[in-house]
Amino acid sequence: MTPAAERITSPAAERTTSPAELDAIAERARRASAALVGTPAAARARWLSAAADDLDAAADELVELADRETSLGRPRLPGELARTTAQLRLFAEAILEGSYIEATIDHADPAAVPPHGDLRRMLRPLGPVGVFGASNFPFAFSIAGGDTASALAAGCPVIVKAHPAHPLLSHRTAEIVDAALTAARAPAGTFAMIEGRDAGTALVTHPAVRAIGFTGSLHGGRALFDLAAGRPDPIPFYGELSALNPVLITSAALEARAAELAEGLVGSFTLGAGQFCTKPGVVLVPRASGFADRVGAVLGAGANASADASTSAGPRMLSAAIASGYGDGVQALTAHPSVRVVAGGAAQASAAAADGRASVALFETAAATVLADPDALLVECFGPAALVIEYDDRAQALAVLGAIGGSLTATLHAEPGEPVDDVVAAMTAIAGRVLFAGWPTGVAVTWSQQHGGPWPATTSIHTSVGVTALRRFLRPVAYQDAPDPLLPPELREANPLGIPRRVDGALTLD
Amino acid sequence: MTPAAERITSPAAERTTSPAELDAIAERARRASAALVGTPAAARARWLSAAADDLDAAADELVELADRETSLGRPRLPGELARTTAQLRLFAEAILEGSYIEATIDHADPAAVPPHGDLRRMLRPLGPVGVFGASNFPFAFSIAGGDTASALAAGCPVIVKAHPAHPLLSHRTAEIVDAALTAARAPAGTFAMIEGRDAGTALVTHPAVRAIGFTGSLHGGRALFDLAAGRPDPIPFYGELSALNPVLITSAALEARAAELAEGLVGSFTLGAGQFCTKPGVVLVPRASGFADRVGAVLGAGANASADASTSAGPRMLSAAIASGYGDGVQALTAHPSVRVVAGGAAQASAAAADGRASVALFETAAATVLADPDALLVECFGPAALVIEYDDRAQALAVLGAIGGSLTATLHAEPGEPVDDVVAAMTAIAGRVLFAGWPTGVAVTWSQQHGGPWPATTSIHTSVGVTALRRFLRPVAYQDAPDPLLPPELREANPLGIPRRVDGALTLD
Repeated sequence: MTPAAERITSPAAERTTSPAELDAIAERARRASAALVGTPAAARARWLSAAADDLDAAADELVELADRETSLGRPRLPGELARTTAQLRLFAEAILEGSYIEATIDHADPAAVPPHGDLRRMLRPLGPVGVFGASNFPFAFSIAGGDTASALAAGCPVIVKAHPAHPLLSHRTAEIVDAALTAARAPAGTFAMIEGRDAGTALVTHPAVRAIGFTGSLHGGRALFDLAAGRPDPIPFYGELSALNPVLITSAALEARAAELAEGLVGSFTLGAGQFCTKPGVVLVPRASGFADRVGAVLGAGANASADASTSAGPRMLSAAIASGYGDGVQALTAHPSVRVVAGGAAQASAAAADGRASVALFETAAATVLADPDALLVECFGPAALVIEYDDRAQALAVLGAIGGSLTATLHAEPGEPVDDVVAAMTAIAGRVLFAGWPTGVAVTWSQQHGGPWPATTSIHTSVGVTALRRFLRPVAYQDAPDPLLPPELREANPLGIPRRVDGALTLD
Repeated sequence: MTPAAERITSPAAERTTSPAELDAIAERARRASAALVGTPAAARARWLSAAADDLDAAADELVELADRETSLGRPRLPGELARTTAQLRLFAEAILEGSYIEATIDHADPAAVPPHGDLRRMLRPLGPVGVFGASNFPFAFSIAGGDTASALAAGCPVIVKAHPAHPLLSHRTAEIVDAALTAARAPAGTFAMIEGRDAGTALVTHPAVRAIGFTGSLHGGRALFDLAAGRPDPIPFYGELSALNPVLITSAALEARAAELAEGLVGSFTLGAGQFCTKPGVVLVPRASGFADRVGAVLGAGANASADASTSAGPRMLSAAIASGYGDGVQALTAHPSVRVVAGGAAQASAAAADGRASVALFETAAATVLADPDALLVECFGPAALVIEYDDRAQALAVLGAIGGSLTATLHAEPGEPVDDVVAAMTAIAGRVLFAGWPTGVAVTWSQQHGGPWPATTSIHTSVGVTALRRFLRPVAYQDAPDPLLPPELREANPLGIPRRVDGALTLD
């Protein structure tokens, strides 16, 4: 961690891309878009790999910059950069494999009802994509993060709005990506960075932009979603906004491993000062389980260096605004008449917030209280706070899950063989990812990842992490009775790229 | 066709589902939704087949009702019913095949960057879906049409708002579908019909409803889209709204087969009184080609019974509002100082509209005129009208395609071997389906169909026709480290359903 005095305030933090600059950038992106439609996946895979290689080569410099601007430290930052470059390479691998474009061929069938000609369908890039970098992942959800990687992989030019919390890192990352893409012969205009709140707003309403990827707050995300939906030509807004990430622990699990669960929970909800979209904010436990006090004891013992509840000298948060918002959230829970403060609380949080720091807070209440006052109690508190909710019985616990609504994750801790079908069904109904072990912080970048869930977790039915994030930036086009040479290679009869396709209804691997 | 005097005005046309009735219907749908999540695809396939069988069995009665209410006649109506029941059966087949749920398994990998546990992902139903029936397809885009079929196939309960243009047919179709589903043991609340404009509005904003399928006008669709996006919890609105469906004919094609092209165009733009969302509304031809007059001659010769431009006694339109709107559109084009009326025109259209009928109209103008006044000239005129646009050269023709923007289809008539890559690229950029022969009316129901395109053709990146229409009503859920028995069968290690899956990155057919 970097002491406050050493934190940098770069002139770059003040910069705003002007409307004229944005127009020029968008026009270049529009022209690049026309060139990108025709680029082979192999070319785009090379660009992504080149960007990954050059970012890895600059790891020392980038991690140093990131730490100066975010205080996230080691091993987090080198790990996040490695995850980010692995992500670029995974998208390269996925587009080479080829099934992401969903090539589908139906030969002419005069006997069908109704009869039809030769129809061939694949996904094509949407066009220029606007991406908003997030404060809490300076690499993985920022300039060269998942939205950028998936949009480029899909064949869409990217205009990324840098988050003001890490301007120098953003600039340097963008320089490296731009140089890598240029050296790998991506069309001019394939990638650009902009800065400033007004430029971000203008990006969402710019006629050349065909979709937006966003990770951030419910308030800010909703405002931009409304702008995107309110355009003369509405565009998709893929926002990942807010989540409570409930955890439910059964009596049997508590009996078997309460100490381990308490340690695990503390590790997860205080990780990175609780500034993860997958932070477990709500923990459902049986009534009179004593679990909250056990967790409080773990916090009091200072088992986790970043979870010291006894002082305001907690970890620096990502921005003054986040620290202030976190302080307000802790204050509201502390002030609630039916909530017990187990650790931390308003006084510590206020003192910490004034210094831009986080103070760990743990609260406890009853499920009946939550059900009576969901709007006050079921609110994301972005920072190292968690609310333990004691339930009387399974039905009440399920009611709380229902009241929580959309979430990125839901986690169940039960013992093998316990009847939990009802909990799994309730969790599946509200979450994008249901965990049966461990804790929700930590989002693997794989083919099967789902990082998204019902509103307000996300604004769409897609994911922002994992290979299928590609789908957000593609739209289908069908070709009817096309001469073979005029078809994209993916749809030509001979399947020159050797990709998986569906032919006359049957999936083929080639 | 049915004379005006025999047209029915049922008391049902006046009915409006009350707010209390809608609440009760939505609550039943919400409960059915919880049951549907767990139903096997095989069960849902049986429901769809049962509905198809019972609708086919009632074909005579349904076609008779449809003709009384729409005047669409034979062979159109029996054909449309057959297409509708074939569509129900195709979705049944698709969900049995199983790849629509995109089952994906990544086994735990401690060597990955970052390491990850066991992750398994599939698509799950969104929940209750609201469907708006269209006036122009009383079967295929109505009570038991594509939106209903795809939502039920996906495992979502459906609440369909009947179009007031065919209330008796809607009632009878809904009765048959509901009885078939009930007999096939679908959960109560899986299907319901509502009526009335206010009930439709309330459906879009009802908390229980998770998505909307809509086919209709740009004006009405935009209003409902705004309601869906403006909810406290925005939901996806899948609307198919408006399209010009441009056709481009090269000099070589005209030299080779002008007469055939003129006959084909007349057949397509006057089909069903031009009341198709895929009606070719704009035809680009080389300057001084004489093509418009050739088409006018076909119309004048009365080669097509429904295309008689010499009288106002054309076919009855679907509703008085549509006839009136068509009359206004023809009037506006007639009044434009740089547009030549080739056939029909304001006087005939007004007289016909007053009688609820359509009068065929053909116009001609120059590409330069269109580019100078696109807002007046590039407007969908829903009915049997087309605008022939003469272009000076390829670049000007491409500029007109660009100005047209999003469309359901784009059709190219060229000769074999002509260099048309630039036209294909321009058409791919604006349309969901690009045709190289024939005419855009007629939308096959297949795996590779794409019925949707950039705004204003549709409000989403999905299709409303074809197997992938399913994707609109599904959202992904990932299970992390789940015990095998707690997983849905689609994701269990042994693949008991034998469906195609992606395992550790590799597609497998089982």
